[in-house]
Amino acid sequence: MDELLFGAAYYDEYLPTDRIATDVEMMRAAGITVVRIAESTWSTLEPQPGVFDFTHVDRALDAFEAAGIHVIVGTPTYAVPAWLVASYPDVLAVTDAGEGRYGARQIMDITNPAYLLHAERVIRALLAHTAPRPGVIGFQVDNETKHYGTAGPAVQRRFVKHLREEFGGDLDALNAAFGLDYWSNRVDAWEDFPDVRGTVNGSLGAAFDRFRRGLVEEFLAWQAGIVREYARPGQFVTQNFDFDWTPGWSYGLQPAVDHFRAAAAVDVAGVDIYHPTQSRLTGKEIAFGGDMTRSIKGGANYLVLETQAQGQLAWLPYPGQLRLQAYSHLASGADGVLYWHWHSLHHSFETYWKGLLSHDLASNPTYEEAGVFGREAARVGGSLLHLRKHNRVAVMVSNEALTALRWFTLETGFIDGVFGSSAGYNDVLRWVYDALFDLNAEVDFVPADDADLGRYDVLVVPALYAAPQATVDRLDAYVRGGGHLVTTFRTAVADEHLAVWHDTAPHGLTGVTGATYNQFTVPDGVGLTLHGDLAGAAGAEAGARTFLELLRPDGAEVLASYDHPAWDGYAAVTRHRTGSGSLTHLGTMTSPELLRAVLGLVLRDAGVADWAQDLAGTVTVRRGTNAAGRAITYLLNYSAEPVTFAAPVTGRSVLAGADVVAGAEVTVGAWDLLVLES
Amino acid sequence: MDELLFGAAYYDEYLPTDRIATDVEMMRAAGITVVRIAESTWSTLEPQPGVFDFTHVDRALDAFEAAGIHVIVGTPTYAVPAWLVASYPDVLAVTDAGEGRYGARQIMDITNPAYLLHAERVIRALLAHTAPRPGVIGFQVDNETKHYGTAGPAVQRRFVKHLREEFGGDLDALNAAFGLDYWSNRVDAWEDFPDVRGTVNGSLGAAFDRFRRGLVEEFLAWQAGIVREYARPGQFVTQNFDFDWTPGWSYGLQPAVDHFRAAAAVDVAGVDIYHPTQSRLTGKEIAFGGDMTRSIKGGANYLVLETQAQGQLAWLPYPGQLRLQAYSHLASGADGVLYWHWHSLHHSFETYWKGLLSHDLASNPTYEEAGVFGREAARVGGSLLHLRKHNRVAVMVSNEALTALRWFTLETGFIDGVFGSSAGYNDVLRWVYDALFDLNAEVDFVPADDADLGRYDVLVVPALYAAPQATVDRLDAYVRGGGHLVTTFRTAVADEHLAVWHDTAPHGLTGVTGATYNQFTVPDGVGLTLHGDLAGAAGAEAGARTFLELLRPDGAEVLASYDHPAWDGYAAVTRHRTGSGSLTHLGTMTSPELLRAVLGLVLRDAGVADWAQDLAGTVTVRRGTNAAGRAITYLLNYSAEPVTFAAPVTGRSVLAGADVVAGAEVTVGAWDLLVLES
Amino acid sequence: MDELLFGAAYYDEYLPTDRIATDVEMMRAAGITVVRIAESTWSTLEPQPGVFDFTHVDRALDAFEAAGIHVIVGTPTYAVPAWLVASYPDVLAVTDAGEGRYGARQIMDITNPAYLLHAERVIRALLAHTAPRPGVIGFQVDNETKHYGTAGPAVQRRFVKHLREEFGGDLDALNAAFGLDYWSNRVDAWEDFPDVRGTVNGSLGAAFDRFRRGLVEEFLAWQAGIVREYARPGQFVTQNFDFDWTPGWSYGLQPAVDHFRAAAAVDVAGVDIYHPTQSRLTGKEIAFGGDMTRSIKGGANYLVLETQAQGQLAWLPYPGQLRLQAYSHLASGADGVLYWHWHSLHHSFETYWKGLLSHDLASNPTYEEAGVFGREAARVGGSLLHLRKHNRVAVMVSNEALTALRWFTLETGFIDGVFGSSAGYNDVLRWVYDALFDLNAEVDFVPADDADLGRYDVLVVPALYAAPQATVDRLDAYVRGGGHLVTTFRTAVADEHLAVWHDTAPHGLTGVTGATYNQFTVPDGVGLTLHGDLAGAAGAEAGARTFLELLRPDGAEVLASYDHPAWDGYAAVTRHRTGSGSLTHLGTMTSPELLRAVLGLVLRDAGVADWAQDLAGTVTVRRGTNAAGRAITYLLNYSAEPVTFAAPVTGRSVLAGADVVAGAEVTVGAWDLLVLES
Repeated sequence: MDELLFGAAYYDEYLPTDRIATDVEMMRAAGITVVRIAESTWSTLEPQPGVFDFTHVDRALDAFEAAGIHVIVGTPTYAVPAWLVASYPDVLAVTDAGEGRYGARQIMDITNPAYLLHAERVIRALLAHTAPRPGVIGFQVDNETKHYGTAGPAVQRRFVKHLREEFGGDLDALNAAFGLDYWSNRVDAWEDFPDVRGTVNGSLGAAFDRFRRGLVEEFLAWQAGIVREYARPGQFVTQNFDFDWTPGWSYGLQPAVDHFRAAAAVDVAGVDIYHPTQSRLTGKEIAFGGDMTRSIKGGANYLVLETQAQGQLAWLPYPGQLRLQAYSHLASGADGVLYWHWHSLHHSFETYWKGLLSHDLASNPTYEEAGVFGREAARVGGSLLHLRKHNRVAVMVSNEALTALRWFTLETGFIDGVFGSSAGYNDVLRWVYDALFDLNAEVDFVPADDADLGRYDVLVVPALYAAPQATVDRLDAYVRGGGHLVTTFRTAVADEHLAVWHDTAPHGLTGVTGATYNQFTVPDGVGLTLHGDLAGAAGAEAGARTFLELLRPDGAEVLASYDHPAWDGYAAVTRHRTGSGSLTHLGTMTSPELLRAVLGLVLRDAGVADWAQDLAGTVTVRRGTNAAGRAITYLLNYSAEPVTFAAPVTGRSVLAGADVVAGAEVTVGAWDLLVLES
Repeated sequence: MDELLFGAAYYDEYLPTDRIATDVEMMRAAGITVVRIAESTWSTLEPQPGVFDFTHVDRALDAFEAAGIHVIVGTPTYAVPAWLVASYPDVLAVTDAGEGRYGARQIMDITNPAYLLHAERVIRALLAHTAPRPGVIGFQVDNETKHYGTAGPAVQRRFVKHLREEFGGDLDALNAAFGLDYWSNRVDAWEDFPDVRGTVNGSLGAAFDRFRRGLVEEFLAWQAGIVREYARPGQFVTQNFDFDWTPGWSYGLQPAVDHFRAAAAVDVAGVDIYHPTQSRLTGKEIAFGGDMTRSIKGGANYLVLETQAQGQLAWLPYPGQLRLQAYSHLASGADGVLYWHWHSLHHSFETYWKGLLSHDLASNPTYEEAGVFGREAARVGGSLLHLRKHNRVAVMVSNEALTALRWFTLETGFIDGVFGSSAGYNDVLRWVYDALFDLNAEVDFVPADDADLGRYDVLVVPALYAAPQATVDRLDAYVRGGGHLVTTFRTAVADEHLAVWHDTAPHGLTGVTGATYNQFTVPDGVGLTLHGDLAGAAGAEAGARTFLELLRPDGAEVLASYDHPAWDGYAAVTRHRTGSGSLTHLGTMTSPELLRAVLGLVLRDAGVADWAQDLAGTVTVRRGTNAAGRAITYLLNYSAEPVTFAAPVTGRSVLAGADVVAGAEVTVGAWDLLVLES
Repeated sequence: MDELLFGAAYYDEYLPTDRIATDVEMMRAAGITVVRIAESTWSTLEPQPGVFDFTHVDRALDAFEAAGIHVIVGTPTYAVPAWLVASYPDVLAVTDAGEGRYGARQIMDITNPAYLLHAERVIRALLAHTAPRPGVIGFQVDNETKHYGTAGPAVQRRFVKHLREEFGGDLDALNAAFGLDYWSNRVDAWEDFPDVRGTVNGSLGAAFDRFRRGLVEEFLAWQAGIVREYARPGQFVTQNFDFDWTPGWSYGLQPAVDHFRAAAAVDVAGVDIYHPTQSRLTGKEIAFGGDMTRSIKGGANYLVLETQAQGQLAWLPYPGQLRLQAYSHLASGADGVLYWHWHSLHHSFETYWKGLLSHDLASNPTYEEAGVFGREAARVGGSLLHLRKHNRVAVMVSNEALTALRWFTLETGFIDGVFGSSAGYNDVLRWVYDALFDLNAEVDFVPADDADLGRYDVLVVPALYAAPQATVDRLDAYVRGGGHLVTTFRTAVADEHLAVWHDTAPHGLTGVTGATYNQFTVPDGVGLTLHGDLAGAAGAEAGARTFLELLRPDGAEVLASYDHPAWDGYAAVTRHRTGSGSLTHLGTMTSPELLRAVLGLVLRDAGVADWAQDLAGTVTVRRGTNAAGRAITYLLNYSAEPVTFAAPVTGRSVLAGADVVAGAEVTVGAWDLLVLES
């Protein structure tokens, strides 16, 4: 699409009255150009098996086509109708919690034949009906697809077959790779394979999770294949990816899907991004989600298929925030922003996940502010569309490491929850991501099997607990090839089966790290002493957190050491140069301030520091090149106070139209932004 | 009964030795006039199916009749014998938690045929045996009856039939009313109706709860009917109602029973009221429970069938408290106070829910203080009996609103517990009730379908989230008819099916409210600024809590507005006069102090304020008219310090016998009281 | 064995490479003399039913025999192989939580016939194979055996038969003893006996727990019997007992095993002791576990079969601590100290329960410090071996009281968790044990049925909630015979069936207590006022905690009374002399400081106080007589600061070799010790 998409999900099915004409009018007034329909409405589309009813779909298509509003049609498969479960109860996923009960969405076994048969039937009917419509620009297959913890007998049987294939039928190899000798867990006959839901073996448990992530990839590819049988040229296929939601919003890497692999099934990546607002709006979740979604399709632009309008109760945006959020998505490379959803629901689970319209379906401040953005976007969208990033910094992420750190948590060493709670993988990932964001250092994400790391000047690798030898070798080669690598505690601990390496740690990296350790603990009143380039940096007083490697330098320079009666002979942060490359290693979790200081050193070392770091703490900088090849510079103020600073570049203010000269004093208001095109 | 009943539950079955003669003697010494027996002793009455053994009942009746102590006989049906469950396992209720296990009381499906058949048999045998006895003054049917979450297949099948009848067989109407289109929950064939335990649809879930409250009404009416076949004229039928027990004592409206409807089955309402004592004794739970129990039978006197003697470990009363508590019950309109229970149990679950006697079965300070009350009551009970209230203030309560706010909680908007915890309906109810109590403004409770609201000068409606149009219309008419209405946030949000209204909020009341809103959030650092009559009131500094409606006045006077960068254009508390009526609306939860100030304004406006409000903070005032038509004024000191004040009325001190002249200085000791008859 | 055993568990099965030769070499360098093998490796020993593979066992025996390192062989039965559960799913224990799932250890029904049949087969095969080996010095039967909450139908059926036998078939007697009349729980036909998992009757529940502790005794005796069919003379049988693990380490009495009874099955008691280190190392858990394990075999020396090397993440020892810990075990009477385990595991649940070696299997500070101890032990072990204690103070412990206080918790009076959390039996036990430890008063433990209490001068009885009449009579006789008894709140409350006594409290002890009570509560702002010998003692300001008996002295001297408006007429701590004996009763839980003052008075009264109490707060003193009949005095410094004091006795420093004269100033370094042989 060569236009900025701005819109919302629309459910004619859920509206209490016939008001589509009014809605279309209000949408047009707000500059809305696209709606997303049909997702999760299976029971309306097919009220009884094989009986289809396209009334609502047709009404929507007719009205939006007439108004020139584009439509994305979602397949309805992520919420199953009651009749399907009534006839085939095993459509419901059996999980760790046992048998399921009908009611919520996302409760089915995505490998169940009855589910797949009926899903295919409704997809084909819907596609045959809608693909020919000129207003339809693309299709979303399913929604926020995951494996839902499916662990019934059929899934487990497939998993055993999968293991048999992976290990070439060699049970001894499997027992050795997974360490099943421990606690008498060996399996010496395939038919003895136990219900994996009870396992205490992290290798086996993680393999099951990886296998189930594979089911998601298979399912999405299967759906996309069906859809493509009907899609016309130019109609895209997307999926609405989402993130780890631990604190109650889009927070980190999705545990149940490998986005890098799953994204292969779609033409355009879609995503949903939800986040705190009001005094807690920082832009970090928008940037994180955007950087991730762009990265999983190799830097391509993506669609924000869902983000909050009024959202949950605590998310009602302050004046200015909704508009700032919309531009924030564009600043990460989004080509479209769609709200979930147009109207607040009058019933059921998400009644207070509020849309652009409140329950009274009338105008309100949030809707009005959306219109401000919509009308601006109609005017200047061409300058902002198709933003390309040229990031020189990357962060390596890994579903395998995330899963591993649930079996062997940072702060307890045991299965999550067994001996208390612990920070997790995403807490470390966000610790490094947020520090880079705060430094105005934009990043791409790369998966652990990325074979071309050398395209980045700086590579940050948080808590890569488990990785195959090939990844370790590539990290070593990256430094030796002149790259600037940053590693944290709990990196290169175990192989891809979660077997801890039995040589000197960090495995395979001791040469480039220039430091080793063979003991570690959790910090308890451990301070930090800074040295060398890091001396005098802010944030040391918070001390060491979460994990403590007792590092012994072997060639590396010590940037920080522990301040503690028992541990003060050990290093906490080291830097080691190998040729023109370097490896900076963080043996503990520092304060955000101190991490920024460490990363600031690396950026300077790598020659990727520029004026953006000077603006850190004043405004957020996000950059790229637009379709016309011009440089776009976003200067975003995520605060309730206006900020004034010298313009870092010369350019035309895209929103104000005026020219700004580098060095001239500019002011950006509370929850406002300046976009320069140079 | 034309005498004050004072007594305790008595379990000859549970006593370790034969000591009924000693107990009778100790009871007489303490002025005890009534005992309650037989409840929960089914396995003793009927040790094997059809084999009855009335030994303990007969012993008790013989001894108490001989001593002139009245007896209330309870049917034993709320604790089922092991033999019943051994033969008919499906007597145990299947609940959200799955299958049940035998052990506790209140674990059966109250619709199970095997249960009902055997319950009827034991009731008939017990009644035939005891009704002719002259000492028996009444019967308690079952005990603290609720639906116990029963949700097995038979109950669910009945529920579906109930829905079919309610909607005249029209599934489309049901789908529309409940909003089942959402997340593909439509039901387009009755036989597809899913297990409702998994539903995420609040309309369906709340309908199931309402249906199950109906089962309680049906069950109590059925039992009462059987009992009445045997009861002699003059023998009453009662039931022991109880309350929401969330913080660990009788706290608020009972979620699982509609007391107003269920009370129809009984002649006299009974109740159990438990509450903190020691430094936490405030009188509020006693007053709340009493006001409610009086109200559900239209102002009639009631029996406190259970209240604590020594009670739980933390409830051992300070000297003076037990006596003060007993009078507190009378001050609310109780005609009887019975302790649970006479002797502390030597076995099982309630060993430390202690009775009047400790485990040593000897005298002790609590027993002795009961005797002080008992002997006083014997002397002055005639003056205190049959207290009638003439309250001009009412509080509207609703089981439907309570249930609704579990599906859509105040602070999260989602199902209770799904996205964290939240204040609930009873917290709002107690916020307003406690403020009125603290103002010495006595209240009645009315249900949401009360058709004669005009008999009250002031009506307070807390968080009436869901109500039918008729209720909304009556509230509107109440104001237009000159009533003084107080509404809080989350009132008139949804209809009786929990469908949120889709017109301007507050639905149907915008004319009398003189203010509207279409956005709301949860407060985060939001202060309050006071205006007009409220300016200078105490308690504003605590700011806004729990919920925040962004009110826009449309004719209403703003008594308080928000103090916050984003929300300061909005009103927090408004007052709007319509003719001689008024509506004061609280858009947020204030501090108790500020709520008292708001309610104080309303009381004055309505002309119902008097000297009692002047004594607020000094002593608690509770009033009424006794059987002789004389005014009774209770002045209760719920504190560890004596209080001195000018007597507000002239009268004879019922307890001291002396005359008190209005204006004379009187002192009420710590945990003591003064009762004046005028 | 006439040598000190020092070693570790060794798992050739779990090692990633063939390195047994290296390990043997490293062990010898560290002075290791024993390894423990084979426990929990059933699936390696018997990979398929009836197919045995002794490869790893033989490798270990060959290597260790060649090196002169002793071997203890453990039967592998506490972790069942997958093939056993695949064929016989009911091998998994059915518990309160329902059906089990395969995965962890200790999940089987130890009475299941399929389990017992296969367990016997593998035990016989292993014993036949290893008993003849000269390096094998003993056998450990199973490991940390408990009943694992087994509660399936067969176990329950046995339990009912057990009750029928206990009550001679008299159901009325059972109903009366357990108080089953309450809440209609009577059982009037054996076939009606309900699933005990749902019971709310503490008498029944506790009887089930006692019955299940009996299953553990039966199981261990059965295993030991099989092992003894094969063991050569001189080869011992042991079991690895463990403790209540509530806060995450070895904390108190084991709820699921009666160690005093279970220990009858073994020749030598073994134990595992885990505890906090770093700044939380106090020596208390080591002393508690040691005193208990010594006491359960009548004062005999024992083996620490497991204790931590690097242990869990937070336990990595500071320099000096590992050595101090090893000596601490010897100071309690251990004849051997074995680490769990030699090498850190590279897989599964306990990957971060780290051994002497880290994952790199190389030397490290912990391993090196073990070597310091090992080499010292080789040199001086003869002086420290076979330490005999001559304690004059005992603490009475009771599984029955522990269980009872879960059904009737101290702070709520209800089943644990039902109305909130509460301190438990072990918290009271540790309160008194820790105070005695801090006073340098060494103790033995005695069970509640100990018939020879008079061998101790002082007997401390914490929270003996439930005990048979015979125990109460012995306590009474103990005081009348001149003993100095200390009792706490919640002592002599109920009989062995948890029926609360119905006479004056404390039941059967009022004569020797000289004080009674019949009311109690939980303290809320209750202070303490000290009197007599206790006046001026430290620690009163913390007030009363956890439980409050309202004591009335009847002959006893009041050492402390309550400071509270309502309770200030009551005593808190009393002392009563009967002839030359005395009973000091604590009616509430005081601060540790105040308890030390109370116990200090008792020790002085009983004539058992000496210089060790003068050193309390400076160093920890632990004493005994070695095999040569010489006095051994350990002076242990559990702190990060050196301490200096006058030597309390004259003797030769066992470790330094130098003579020390009583009164001479000596300094013990941080986490260091001085051992004198006199």
